[in-house]
Amino acid sequence: MIIIGEKINGSIPAVAKAIAERDAEFIKDRARKQAAANATYIDCCASVAEEVEVETLKWMIECIQEVTDLPISVDSPSADVLKEAYKFCNKPGLFNSVSGEGSKIDTIFPIMAMEENKGWEVIALLSDDTGIPKSAADRLRVFDNIMAKAEEYHISPSRIHIDPLVEMLCTSEDGIAMNIEVIETVRKRYPNIHITAAISNISFNLPVRKLINYGFMILAMNAGLDSAIMDPTNRDMLGLVYATEALMGEDDFCMEYIGAYRQGLIGPAPKN
Amino acid sequence: MIIIGEKINGSIPAVAKAIAERDAEFIKDRARKQAAANATYIDCCASVAEEVEVETLKWMIECIQEVTDLPISVDSPSADVLKEAYKFCNKPGLFNSVSGEGSKIDTIFPIMAMEENKGWEVIALLSDDTGIPKSAADRLRVFDNIMAKAEEYHISPSRIHIDPLVEMLCTSEDGIAMNIEVIETVRKRYPNIHITAAISNISFNLPVRKLINYGFMILAMNAGLDSAIMDPTNRDMLGLVYATEALMGEDDFCMEYIGAYRQGLIGPAPKN
Repeated sequence: MIIIGEKINGSIPAVAKAIAERDAEFIKDRARKQAAANATYIDCCASVAEEVEVETLKWMIECIQEVTDLPISVDSPSADVLKEAYKFCNKPGLFNSVSGEGSKIDTIFPIMAMEENKGWEVIALLSDDTGIPKSAADRLRVFDNIMAKAEEYHISPSRIHIDPLVEMLCTSEDGIAMNIEVIETVRKRYPNIHITAAISNISFNLPVRKLINYGFMILAMNAGLDSAIMDPTNRDMLGLVYATEALMGEDDFCMEYIGAYRQGLIGPAPKN
Repeated sequence: MIIIGEKINGSIPAVAKAIAERDAEFIKDRARKQAAANATYIDCCASVAEEVEVETLKWMIECIQEVTDLPISVDSPSADVLKEAYKFCNKPGLFNSVSGEGSKIDTIFPIMAMEENKGWEVIALLSDDTGIPKSAADRLRVFDNIMAKAEEYHISPSRIHIDPLVEMLCTSEDGIAMNIEVIETVRKRYPNIHITAAISNISFNLPVRKLINYGFMILAMNAGLDSAIMDPTNRDMLGLVYATEALMGEDDFCMEYIGAYRQGLIGPAPKN
């Protein structure tokens, strides 16, 4: 499972405060803890006005790179910001994100196509200029358009993380059936593509959000999800990722699961 | 979801002690708590020598019936014991269990076929005189034999809870794939049958057993499980049952999930 650690995001009030005060220790601490908890990428989102976003991301990326050499998921709604901010990374990471909207793909895919950027991957959201499509068929149409662009720019599916876009469960009459259909179809068409989701979006406005998040992650992994934007320092969430891999037959004799426990990554937190 | 509360079982040391000391309050307390936590049945298993099993079950069943009118799952490996003990129940419950082994079915199904016992249901394990079959095909063969007997005795599939028999995940190379295949096949053949499992068997000999149990329950529910022998007083486990039903589209707008939270069944335990 590819885990994109979500804890450094300016939309979280404590992170916004740290960014405003340029509290490098706060950012570094979150980077360190997510690295220790086995994150694959450290997501880095400023959530500030676009005029100051590139310089803010530069400072944040430098903070993170001082304490971990994990690759960074450079996170901005603006492709123009991503186009500048990725240059601050010491090693290839993840563009988070493009979509079928505007010229985002035509801004980012040419950068990914450059010889020196072959290690970069990208999250592609299944929305376009019409917004977030309501039906699975319409999301898959956006998907087809994105994959046509990927082919045009010679971006291999294995460098793309498709995000089918999860909406609030509490406004749904049929649960996550539409998401599951999209995930299963994408997985069937491209065995080597990555499929990701911002897990906690599913539980907005519901009580005991963790229960909905856990259930969603397990059902989505079962459908083909192999990447997730989540909190790797949530020991139960991380433990359920390992448990689900073992249950799905991807961990012979539970050796990875037992190893994660022995390393202290899952199970009761070690006492200080 | 049909929840068979597992907390009154003589194989649990504290329960064995209460049985030995005829500590009725202990048994009643466990029955009350499971009823309050929304159990559908209260399982009642003595786990004592067969010579004293019927009288022990009589005492236990009477204890339970003093505090709740929930139906009882009368639990014994012996069909001859079940045949006597079910008579102590004030209302129809669940025979737990028969299997393809020996004459168990021919002992219990005729009782269920009697006009006055039409409310009784049964758990049927997919094992026979050869033991627990290793392959899905062999378990499904046992299933076919059981269903042929059910037809012979005019027992409707809706009165049968099929238990595909879960074994330890830690000795498995392919996870729960075989269980899922059995569950999906049974569900496809008989849309109205019940499919059950003793959830916690999956996690024997593994650390942080709850993680494996949670993941298994969610994946099994997704495959068609609609009944489970579990601990309803585990608030996270019960909460995940509600969450999974909502995620699977069986709970419009999460009204049941939100209701369970408002009733205090799931989420942080109320402070005393």
